[in-house]
Amino acid sequence: MNKPTACIILFLSMLTSSFVKAEDGYRLWLRYDKVQNSTLYNNYRQSVKQMQFNGSSPTLLAAKRELTNALQQMLNLQPALVNSVTSNGTLIVGTPKTSANVAKFSNDIAAAGDEGYFIKSANINGKSCLMIGANTDKGILYGVFNFLKLLQTGQSLQSVAINESPKIKMRVLNHWDNLDRTVERGYAGSSIWKWHKLPGYIDPRYIDYARANASIGINGAVVNNVNASAISLTKDYLIKASALANVFRTYGIKIYLTARFSAPIEIGGLKTADPLDAGVRQWWKDKADEIYKYIPDFGGFIVKANSEGQPGPQTYNRNHVDGANMLADALKPHNGIVMWRAFVYDDKVPDDRAKQAYNEFKPLDGQFSDNVIVQVKNGAIDFQPREPFHPLFGAMRKTPLMMEFQITQEYLGFSTHLVYLAPMFKETLESDTYAKGKGSTVAKDIEGQLDKQTLSGMAGVANIGSDVNWTGHPFAQANWYAFGRLAWNPAQSSEAIADDWLRMTFTQDNSFIKPVKALMLSSRETTVDYMTPLGLHHIMGTGAHYGPGPWVGNLARPDWNPTYYHKADSAGVGFDRTSTGSNAVAQYFPPVRDEFEHIETTPEKYLLWFHHVSWKHTMPSGKTLWQEMVDHYYRGVDSVRNMQKTWSLMQGKIDDARYNEVKQLLAIQEQEAVWWRNACVLYFQSFSKMPIPASYEKPDHDLNYYRNQKLYFLPGTNGVQ
Amino acid sequence: MNKPTACIILFLSMLTSSFVKAEDGYRLWLRYDKVQNSTLYNNYRQSVKQMQFNGSSPTLLAAKRELTNALQQMLNLQPALVNSVTSNGTLIVGTPKTSANVAKFSNDIAAAGDEGYFIKSANINGKSCLMIGANTDKGILYGVFNFLKLLQTGQSLQSVAINESPKIKMRVLNHWDNLDRTVERGYAGSSIWKWHKLPGYIDPRYIDYARANASIGINGAVVNNVNASAISLTKDYLIKASALANVFRTYGIKIYLTARFSAPIEIGGLKTADPLDAGVRQWWKDKADEIYKYIPDFGGFIVKANSEGQPGPQTYNRNHVDGANMLADALKPHNGIVMWRAFVYDDKVPDDRAKQAYNEFKPLDGQFSDNVIVQVKNGAIDFQPREPFHPLFGAMRKTPLMMEFQITQEYLGFSTHLVYLAPMFKETLESDTYAKGKGSTVAKDIEGQLDKQTLSGMAGVANIGSDVNWTGHPFAQANWYAFGRLAWNPAQSSEAIADDWLRMTFTQDNSFIKPVKALMLSSRETTVDYMTPLGLHHIMGTGAHYGPGPWVGNLARPDWNPTYYHKADSAGVGFDRTSTGSNAVAQYFPPVRDEFEHIETTPEKYLLWFHHVSWKHTMPSGKTLWQEMVDHYYRGVDSVRNMQKTWSLMQGKIDDARYNEVKQLLAIQEQEAVWWRNACVLYFQSFSKMPIPASYEKPDHDLNYYRNQKLYFLPGTNGVQ
Repeated sequence: MNKPTACIILFLSMLTSSFVKAEDGYRLWLRYDKVQNSTLYNNYRQSVKQMQFNGSSPTLLAAKRELTNALQQMLNLQPALVNSVTSNGTLIVGTPKTSANVAKFSNDIAAAGDEGYFIKSANINGKSCLMIGANTDKGILYGVFNFLKLLQTGQSLQSVAINESPKIKMRVLNHWDNLDRTVERGYAGSSIWKWHKLPGYIDPRYIDYARANASIGINGAVVNNVNASAISLTKDYLIKASALANVFRTYGIKIYLTARFSAPIEIGGLKTADPLDAGVRQWWKDKADEIYKYIPDFGGFIVKANSEGQPGPQTYNRNHVDGANMLADALKPHNGIVMWRAFVYDDKVPDDRAKQAYNEFKPLDGQFSDNVIVQVKNGAIDFQPREPFHPLFGAMRKTPLMMEFQITQEYLGFSTHLVYLAPMFKETLESDTYAKGKGSTVAKDIEGQLDKQTLSGMAGVANIGSDVNWTGHPFAQANWYAFGRLAWNPAQSSEAIADDWLRMTFTQDNSFIKPVKALMLSSRETTVDYMTPLGLHHIMGTGAHYGPGPWVGNLARPDWNPTYYHKADSAGVGFDRTSTGSNAVAQYFPPVRDEFEHIETTPEKYLLWFHHVSWKHTMPSGKTLWQEMVDHYYRGVDSVRNMQKTWSLMQGKIDDARYNEVKQLLAIQEQEAVWWRNACVLYFQSFSKMPIPASYEKPDHDLNYYRNQKLYFLPGTNGVQ
Repeated sequence: MNKPTACIILFLSMLTSSFVKAEDGYRLWLRYDKVQNSTLYNNYRQSVKQMQFNGSSPTLLAAKRELTNALQQMLNLQPALVNSVTSNGTLIVGTPKTSANVAKFSNDIAAAGDEGYFIKSANINGKSCLMIGANTDKGILYGVFNFLKLLQTGQSLQSVAINESPKIKMRVLNHWDNLDRTVERGYAGSSIWKWHKLPGYIDPRYIDYARANASIGINGAVVNNVNASAISLTKDYLIKASALANVFRTYGIKIYLTARFSAPIEIGGLKTADPLDAGVRQWWKDKADEIYKYIPDFGGFIVKANSEGQPGPQTYNRNHVDGANMLADALKPHNGIVMWRAFVYDDKVPDDRAKQAYNEFKPLDGQFSDNVIVQVKNGAIDFQPREPFHPLFGAMRKTPLMMEFQITQEYLGFSTHLVYLAPMFKETLESDTYAKGKGSTVAKDIEGQLDKQTLSGMAGVANIGSDVNWTGHPFAQANWYAFGRLAWNPAQSSEAIADDWLRMTFTQDNSFIKPVKALMLSSRETTVDYMTPLGLHHIMGTGAHYGPGPWVGNLARPDWNPTYYHKADSAGVGFDRTSTGSNAVAQYFPPVRDEFEHIETTPEKYLLWFHHVSWKHTMPSGKTLWQEMVDHYYRGVDSVRNMQKTWSLMQGKIDDARYNEVKQLLAIQEQEAVWWRNACVLYFQSFSKMPIPASYEKPDHDLNYYRNQKLYFLPGTNGVQ
């Protein structure tokens, strides 16, 4: 897209030297700026005059360092370290092992479990104290970060009483980072892992990465791409990975690696990777033993098998169970886990791409080893701006399922569009599968509550890169943050998470928080409006998944084409997945399947996902489908313009650097929303033959112009266009 | 190479949180920290109490902003802006146009030329003042940066009298940055150019890049790789480039683009790129017109033609003159320049690779248009740790030659080895070609002084990437800095440049400056010792050019192989380039050619470059060649260990962050120096059959171990291994 240079010159005049860069975004939500409210400042200082914090494990020392650094910066305070409580305002931090005072809170300790904590105001020796207690050092670390969050968000400490423990056990970032430092679907520069300099050079950024994750409860990281290189399992690379693991361990984070299924051939010198071959099985056992020699707390493997050209058990006429259980057997002696992905996209073209994972995995339910968890994307297609929940949720009653969300905005405008994803994550989590009747939400399934699973997990495909601000768009940090918060507890609200994030990341000024929070909360719906309203999906430019491409229909495989997904014709638009069509609806439990079976009962937001609908169909609003669709696209653009207006009022409320960056990015988002709107409306109009109301802003180019847009070198594609 | 994890754990304990990151290296040599010496602090404050600085051009405003920001930070001072000189301690900044006081200094103004400046203490209206004067706004910008350097390096302002103007006109960074943000031979992350977000988003880093360059006089930037994509010349990408040009312009930097010779076919739809074809010639004229529409001060093209698979005029049986002059004609109406590279590496295998450029270009001397400058690498092979000067210097008497240095350490340990390159650059610049008798130095040639050329230039292949500290290794910043300083004036000493850089970048503490400066000054010789002593060259691992690979001899083309370059056999080692061999020496003027013709007169450092020498040859030291070579390799390792010892004494004298980073990198350098030493000594021993003295540290592996080392995913190779 061409953008006028005039606005550049305008921006230039706004920008000043950034060597004096107060706010480059590097500090994320852990800024620890001085508390501005003088009442709070004084109250906080009174509350932590002294500190009782014993223990010398690396994790406890890290927690203590975090606490003292933060208090120094926020309160200009260095609490005296004491061994006994002799005055009011003592902060007591510890586990039953390190603190007799904490040990007395047996109920709170019991409730905390392995990873939880409590934060309480309490009377100790007749003195008014604050307690941060936990069973484990890791719990203390989480407790400290959350205690600091109270200060960062301006909460009162007067009668604080918090008991927290995570609802989900494995809270894991998936880095689609290649060993050459390119990042598949990465829009924030290159990989933060400097493999070439490992293990000799430990970038301080690794520590800050671990701190940021620990602050939101993330306890695992898959550091390499699911489209894997076997090289990551060679000795040299295991030693490199162990150096990362050493950093992560202090912060309660386990390292995981992708296992390329054909590794026994590629680096093992075997002739086969057949999971039932004894030599192959032994190779993986030996490899697991070797890994644990270097990384004693190695988390396990994640595997993408028989999908998009990746090798897998089906290559040898075996199934997913054969593959997963072989790796599980190898890891089992070391308590390692296999995360086996259900995102399968094999060589055969299915009648409906949305049905494939269910069809392949449902029959295998109950056959996986107990240290296998199946990782399922939130929806059945692929990280679209909106998808109905994946039908595997609720359907695998004897297999623990791990949620796979995508934090990086592959289909959501890369790192130029402001899209707060918590509402999207929540939409899936709160969907009711009805697997065991009403209330069988997706959240319950992945929490392991539906069928009392031992394993539970949530994965997020990371949006982190080498950009100084980590995520490219300053607001994309919120998506990393929200993922962690929701993995800890899916019940938290998008609004509360946004509120915390904004306060920690920008300012406590409510005249900023309120409008910007509203802007965040509506941003995802806005993006759906200008990209894929009413259940449309996968109509992006193919390959890079950037910009509109609804006209693409010439790729070799039908299900690679946008036309496959929208099926627009002169009669209407949408994919008939009802019993008259692909019958994908049958993969859902009643009453969900019945709801989706009929146009009338299908939620409007999923309409064209499940139905081929006449252009003239009357929508609940009374408008035709065509008019409704046009209105969504136009509303999307209008909403972006409103975001710009809101943002322009924020000048001076926050630092200029981030204000200007977001302002520029919103201008790009507005241009691209217009591009989406015009391209899609003109394209679908070529089928509907119905008018765009004359009062609406007229597209400034014809359809051919948009069809002929050529984009080169889009990020995250590693050569794919 | 495997490194023990024990040391990692040690380092971890040294590292602390870096969210409070005082010194991440981003500020380069423009840190403007508060002046610590109280006498200087007070004197400086007295000297700049007031400021007379008129003018409103973007460049003058940038200079003023730089000055006021720096004075605020260094001196906690906001000088009052005045219109007339009424008190002592007035700083007067301006051109004859903006300042009547400056206009009076007509001699200084005349001496300044287009880009120079003067800085003087002077008596104005009976008041003691400081003057920064120039003919042009750009001269003022340079003057301001150099005035600030006086403060940054602790110079007295009492009777300052500086007249500076550059000896070389085009002082240009060459970025080998691809449009997908990979960087060929880049070891500091990905490209700093975020093409995808251009022109809409202007990264503040672009401004800091321009400031850093302006501070050392760099006035041009080729922003894309010489292995070029024609896409960079499409309208969309020209608009993106124009956004960069808008940033650069303020700081006196012109943007240049690489011209892919086959662009008329690839993006122009023509059937040929024949430079004598009328349609092709018109296409380039039109393209030039288009470029200047977007970038009115576009610098011009750089071209790598008929080299390493790049298309060029020879593809159409034309020569370099045909190609260069066609482009020169297109640029001429707009005052654009063609930088035509002499690094040719075509499909035919020459009898001696070192002779090829001379053979191709010397016959063309005098035929290039007057807006063509031929860009010649410092040596005839390819950016080796040490090369004799390129024989084209001095030989092209009717053609301006531009020096091409490589700042990025392709053959010098990437960004893990501390190698200060100024002594290497100087070695070439001070070489005497004898083209017009004694004193015909390479520096004189590229300054255009040898034959009074109108054009003159020096290019440096940049070592800049997305790493927060720009260059990966903190000390690699010194090589960017030194390049700029030497391009301004090749006569400056390596030591003076290192001294300034250290003071601005680290501290004024002489107990740091003195030992670390010595360490820097010897670092390049150290690297030559452990990599390629005595004139050895191109014995690195092939492709990535990392680590030792003297045994490689199986690549398709003879001159791709290290064995081609060292020609070791049982009799001896080295490439006979004398009259009994390839006679490359004949490309030099007498007496240089005579010096190089004979073993006895060839400088020892170039010995094996020009001669095949018996292992038992007695060296001036009295040792055999074999023993001398072994000693160099061992000395290299010992020197790195001494660097480590020196550095370990610096703890506490500078910030911990950079201290620890360099400490870790030196440990890697030591390991790799040992790797180089052992591999090379063992390999050459397999020919010499002579012993390594028993008292020397024994290689800890055998030759096979080193030969079998497999390295993957080395940076800067874009897939090349």
